[in-house]
Amino acid sequence: MDADLVKREFMAVFDELVAQLDAELASSFDVPLPAQAYMRKIMTYNVPHGKLTRGLAVLQCYKSFCGHAHELSAEETRQANMLGWCVEWLQACFLVADDIMDGSHTRRGQACYYKLPEIGLKAVNDSLILEAMIFRILKANFRSHRAYVELTELFREITFITEVGQLLDLTSQQEPGHVDLTAFTSDTLYRIYRYKTAYYSFYLSVALGMRLANVEDPQLYKHAERVCLAIGEYFQAQDDYLDCFGEPELIGKVGTDIEENKCTWLVVTALHECNASAEDRALLEANYGRNDKECVARVKELYRKLGIPDAFQAYEQKSYDSIRAMIAELEGVMPTGAFDFLLQKVYKRSK
Amino acid sequence: MDADLVKREFMAVFDELVAQLDAELASSFDVPLPAQAYMRKIMTYNVPHGKLTRGLAVLQCYKSFCGHAHELSAEETRQANMLGWCVEWLQACFLVADDIMDGSHTRRGQACYYKLPEIGLKAVNDSLILEAMIFRILKANFRSHRAYVELTELFREITFITEVGQLLDLTSQQEPGHVDLTAFTSDTLYRIYRYKTAYYSFYLSVALGMRLANVEDPQLYKHAERVCLAIGEYFQAQDDYLDCFGEPELIGKVGTDIEENKCTWLVVTALHECNASAEDRALLEANYGRNDKECVARVKELYRKLGIPDAFQAYEQKSYDSIRAMIAELEGVMPTGAFDFLLQKVYKRSK
Repeated sequence: MDADLVKREFMAVFDELVAQLDAELASSFDVPLPAQAYMRKIMTYNVPHGKLTRGLAVLQCYKSFCGHAHELSAEETRQANMLGWCVEWLQACFLVADDIMDGSHTRRGQACYYKLPEIGLKAVNDSLILEAMIFRILKANFRSHRAYVELTELFREITFITEVGQLLDLTSQQEPGHVDLTAFTSDTLYRIYRYKTAYYSFYLSVALGMRLANVEDPQLYKHAERVCLAIGEYFQAQDDYLDCFGEPELIGKVGTDIEENKCTWLVVTALHECNASAEDRALLEANYGRNDKECVARVKELYRKLGIPDAFQAYEQKSYDSIRAMIAELEGVMPTGAFDFLLQKVYKRSK
Repeated sequence: MDADLVKREFMAVFDELVAQLDAELASSFDVPLPAQAYMRKIMTYNVPHGKLTRGLAVLQCYKSFCGHAHELSAEETRQANMLGWCVEWLQACFLVADDIMDGSHTRRGQACYYKLPEIGLKAVNDSLILEAMIFRILKANFRSHRAYVELTELFREITFITEVGQLLDLTSQQEPGHVDLTAFTSDTLYRIYRYKTAYYSFYLSVALGMRLANVEDPQLYKHAERVCLAIGEYFQAQDDYLDCFGEPELIGKVGTDIEENKCTWLVVTALHECNASAEDRALLEANYGRNDKECVARVKELYRKLGIPDAFQAYEQKSYDSIRAMIAELEGVMPTGAFDFLLQKVYKRSK
């Protein structure tokens, strides 16, 4: 099936879920019309504007686990797509909250939700509502599925892991203008990658597809976790790279990692892989984590001088090859279509 | 058993749950020590400093549902208290989020969590973490209970209702300095009372006690809901009254409902029950919702002139009598000890 049709089918399920939640609110909650409209806006503004890779991956995974035995029915496709939207709902919950905490301005090419004059800090509650909606969708549509408990627990587990990752990220951030380069280690970096991004962005979609297909062998979930975390780490390193060297028009935001004193792939690689000299380190200490265009330019110049763009190309190829090898090892053990799908979405992306 | 011992037993379960979550974080999540300490602080700063009525009510309810048949074992008491703490955890999640959204300064006699210099807007994520912890507690301790699914769904349902209530409250607030008195209706008021407060503060504890005691008859949950919502509405009217006429030292905060243009029991009663004249309405329009001490004083003076304190005493007595009558009707239908406990905690409270 061509990608456009797949996406159209996926979008139709979004409309259906919004209508479902809307109807429930009107019928069970006796909520006045303006509040219903507000609730719809929470969804339509925040949920469907990303690349939707996470959401679409559930169907791909589900297909690869049971699609060889038969063509998926319309209802099976719909079910997988509903779980896919739950992942997008979770992503929306995190993005709304993260943007408030980071004081961000734009997201996915539009104003951050909390920046809208009619929203403001109400967005804190709206982030909680987005999360709660996931479990309403699950209850309304999967209550009688034999993996219902596992589906809900999977969402709970991955949500918690991601929140721990966010906590690690936030608590490892240093005060602006006070740079401690010893805090930028690859241990710290990869732990945050895994917890904050890789689990919910990659493993969750795959595990949902597996649960929906009634896969129960814990060993297969372990295999999926290992591959997905590897893809997630690579994806997040790309994210860091694009924040600094990507096109703002393509990535939908202006990167600010340097100003914000973030522990990124670039700074860790500069310090530990590219033989930064004492002079280079002093330059970093003087210019990193400052909200000043000239300081940022000096850091980017240093990255170029140290060969970070080339180091990234090499890292990218090495990651790709090693993930391909992991997938190849699993041929015959379990279907690997979902991993191929995710890796191909991520490889050499520019947005 | 005397109240002090009950409370000491309850507090011991808090320590146990903190240790449980802490150990899990260290063992399963490979989280560095400073992040573990941060996580403990999320709990110890926010969870156990209230009156704990909601938390203690679960045990009371559980006892009244199965305590007549036998003395509760230490393990049964502990289980009820763990569920009680889950209610307190949920309350903590809401308070952290609400204080950010309201821009509050103090809470329970200490600085609001997000106001701590080392916390700030990280509190948005910490509020999500507090919510997530509830489901970790449930999973670690109730996964094999026959009502496990119902316990988790109960938390999800009441959490969502409360978030809808918060949305109704926030979206019904008017801009400062722009007062539309027609928006202050008792429909709006009581809907917010029920959704934002009554369900999680009263019904949740009772329903948890019933679930733990394996009560399954939906009719009994309906009865409990009706009584609990009545107690909750009365409780919230008290809250509004104390915000204006209570002692800040007792209630742990300085009330700001008038400044913040809130739809409260006082303003609704002034407008609809106390025959406010055209002149009184003009005075309200000119002075309500303004961050100005003199304006606030004028509104309070108007409340006194219209006899609001007396009207409140009368409302309080009427509510009490009508709730007592509702409880009396249920004698013989179901145990009513939990309702008595809650009503007695609430009646004529000054904090």
